[in-house]
Amino acid sequence: MKNRTISLICCAALLISCFNDARAQRRRAPATEHFDAKLEADLNRLQEAALSSDYAYRQLAHLCNNIGPRLSGSAQAAHAVEYVAGELRKLGLEVRLEKCITPHWVRGVETAALTEFVGQAPKTTQKIVVTALGGSVATPGEGTTAEVVVVENFDQLRALGRQRVEGKIVLFNVRFDVRMAAAGAWGDAYGQAVVYRGIGASEAARLGAVASLVRSVGGADYRLPHTGALRYADDAPRIPAGAVTSEDADTIAYLASQGRVRMRLTLTPETLPDVESFNVVADLKGTERPEEIVIVSGHLDSWDLGTGAIDDGAGVVIAMQTAQLVKQLGLKPKRTIRVIAWMNEENGGAGSRAYAEAHKAEFSNHVAAIESDLGAGHPLGFNARANAKALEMLAPLAEILRTSGAGLMRAVPAGTGADIEPLEADGVPCFGVLQDGRTYFNYHHTAADTLDKVSPRELAENAAAMAVLAYAIASLPDRLTR
Amino acid sequence: MKNRTISLICCAALLISCFNDARAQRRRAPATEHFDAKLEADLNRLQEAALSSDYAYRQLAHLCNNIGPRLSGSAQAAHAVEYVAGELRKLGLEVRLEKCITPHWVRGVETAALTEFVGQAPKTTQKIVVTALGGSVATPGEGTTAEVVVVENFDQLRALGRQRVEGKIVLFNVRFDVRMAAAGAWGDAYGQAVVYRGIGASEAARLGAVASLVRSVGGADYRLPHTGALRYADDAPRIPAGAVTSEDADTIAYLASQGRVRMRLTLTPETLPDVESFNVVADLKGTERPEEIVIVSGHLDSWDLGTGAIDDGAGVVIAMQTAQLVKQLGLKPKRTIRVIAWMNEENGGAGSRAYAEAHKAEFSNHVAAIESDLGAGHPLGFNARANAKALEMLAPLAEILRTSGAGLMRAVPAGTGADIEPLEADGVPCFGVLQDGRTYFNYHHTAADTLDKVSPRELAENAAAMAVLAYAIASLPDRLTR
Repeated sequence: MKNRTISLICCAALLISCFNDARAQRRRAPATEHFDAKLEADLNRLQEAALSSDYAYRQLAHLCNNIGPRLSGSAQAAHAVEYVAGELRKLGLEVRLEKCITPHWVRGVETAALTEFVGQAPKTTQKIVVTALGGSVATPGEGTTAEVVVVENFDQLRALGRQRVEGKIVLFNVRFDVRMAAAGAWGDAYGQAVVYRGIGASEAARLGAVASLVRSVGGADYRLPHTGALRYADDAPRIPAGAVTSEDADTIAYLASQGRVRMRLTLTPETLPDVESFNVVADLKGTERPEEIVIVSGHLDSWDLGTGAIDDGAGVVIAMQTAQLVKQLGLKPKRTIRVIAWMNEENGGAGSRAYAEAHKAEFSNHVAAIESDLGAGHPLGFNARANAKALEMLAPLAEILRTSGAGLMRAVPAGTGADIEPLEADGVPCFGVLQDGRTYFNYHHTAADTLDKVSPRELAENAAAMAVLAYAIASLPDRLTR
Repeated sequence: MKNRTISLICCAALLISCFNDARAQRRRAPATEHFDAKLEADLNRLQEAALSSDYAYRQLAHLCNNIGPRLSGSAQAAHAVEYVAGELRKLGLEVRLEKCITPHWVRGVETAALTEFVGQAPKTTQKIVVTALGGSVATPGEGTTAEVVVVENFDQLRALGRQRVEGKIVLFNVRFDVRMAAAGAWGDAYGQAVVYRGIGASEAARLGAVASLVRSVGGADYRLPHTGALRYADDAPRIPAGAVTSEDADTIAYLASQGRVRMRLTLTPETLPDVESFNVVADLKGTERPEEIVIVSGHLDSWDLGTGAIDDGAGVVIAMQTAQLVKQLGLKPKRTIRVIAWMNEENGGAGSRAYAEAHKAEFSNHVAAIESDLGAGHPLGFNARANAKALEMLAPLAEILRTSGAGLMRAVPAGTGADIEPLEADGVPCFGVLQDGRTYFNYHHTAADTLDKVSPRELAENAAAMAVLAYAIASLPDRLTR
């Protein structure tokens, strides 16, 4: 984790060195063995067209405003599948809906109040802003009332032991490190806090807790709770689990330091029967090697609190625009560019698994997979899980992408995108768009993940980056080495 | 308004010129006729003691966390009165509770959803985040469903006319100018938007609207609605009124530009019978001229969504600390320092009126009144409604206050504080602490007005500024000229 932190912090330095390498190489060989002048010209045209287009932004506005939140199993998710499929058919792509079975969890009432604490005014409570974590079971309809114990990590929880946890509500008061995020290591800041959201409930339940809360995993201070999936362990009781805002976590911790704090917590989500849903899979057929596939993708499902603009409507619309631009410019990629709008990234990964099951036999024909799922901020370039030879083949791209500030190709051992993970694991060269994520976790998984968080210009830069990389891989004389 | 904008933007320049003036004067006359060496030393001690104290912050933590929101008429407001009175008695002050009769408005359910709009998924709605404006009447319990018309100003509303407004919900989509606020003119940015919150409902009702909404008056983008008082005109029907978040205003405007938008709006606040409440009035008696009064104050009531940290718990606790510091240091002001925690600034001004009625005959003995009600940001100094001679008498203070960056004494024609307005109107020299308010309206009147928004250091700077000014006025050989 430390190495990763350092490497992220060094992004800027890497970026510069990457540019310099590209320039040096370019001076030596204006057109490499892989990039002829025609391809280079086409890529420049793609980039320019993307940067002057509002296609992606208009699509995103429709997904967010006209359709809305798209949690798996919802009517909006189903409608979004039809909408995106229709738009891709309009572009002339071969579109299939590929089935996956998703959970169907629906949020209910979510309220909380401190009913007992030092110094309270008679007959009053202190309101606590809470949201249920995705997948949580419900409290009774009238709520669960119990004392709150506050811990800052798992060690503190275990040190309390069953005697002091049983029958209580546990609050994991773990701060999201905003300085780390601002310094460039937003992924690590998220990673070190989100573990409590994932497994906190089961850890607390093992010691007899009746409910579990986390301090919201995110960087804003606007009384804004962040939802996200939890993972119940098979060997622990399932207890209701929520996230309180950073402000409410502070208040609870302050009051608990003075004396006993009791909370009434009401969360009434329901898990309904699983629902048949779909990945949208749309092919723009290659002219020379149509059986070879280059995936461009984002996930269509979103959390239910906001409207899924940065997570991950943005990823879907820039993948759509890759196809739109190729069509608009009348370009003919050698290989097939496959647009995928994944389903159920947020709370299950059913779409990713279904694709892997259905297409496993063809993975050898998957030349590369690209996903964007880190927001819509200015793209610095890509995280690349690819071998050195493949990266060398793509090196000339830096010269093109650097003009929109996206020239970085950063080798990573894994983690280019949740939906393309099965491809990555199989050895397919995989790429994740690497956005400037300094403010991403302020809005992530909240009601404030809405269209206004996306800059039309930055979205266009993302579309440009994805289109250029995808078209290059689809058009190189040689297949990208695995 | 323009002049005011310019003057605010010029704060920094004024500040520097103010320092320079003070320095020049100091070089000429180290101790003026008004400030002898003893007073100067006492003021420096007060400032140092304030800056190293956490008294104000601890009091604020109690008001926010242990008591909570303090809307007029609430149990918390009543409890806060008792608490502050008790703390001031602990300091040895003569404390009175002075009666005022306040409204008792309580928030109810507040939900909204778009039920019809272009492109919606079957059987879905788009959620709208809304909060009731203070004083609003209620919709029916099942809500009001009507078409939404969006206007950007009163002229557009009037241009629509009764035919296109009758039976509709009007949305005043007026943006808070965040650039103006960031540039220093936060008060003007607020002023030009808040008029729609104040009188929008009556303007819409005159044309037959069934409900009125404003875009939240504030600068944040975290799906956070801002409440605040409305003022129903006597000659217009009273219709329910709320504020939607900036994001929701954008969504509604986007959808309304495409076709018909209908909303179901449910607001169920209640106006209960008026309640007897109190200003807390606490005297630290002057040794030589006890009948002469210098007021230090903030307002104790707050809106109900947050816990009233910046609006205006901060003002109350720095006024309390003025007395605490004078006592702690064993100082003996010539005149009486009167701490007032005002009631009902937010939705009625009953405390201010009650004080004016009860003390009108003694206004001639009120030497000065200070209020802090612009948050808890770093203090730049004071807005001063005082004559030139009075400002000249206070000029040496700049030399002391500049060491904590609060050396500005900015003459204003009016508006030093809502609660001291009757004193100001009577000609009493009045001062409002002038905080750096660039982010104040991000949190103002929202659920996010909580303790964490206050920096302990900046709160201490505010306490220092108020204490120094108040003690100086209370201790000058001559009474501040009117």
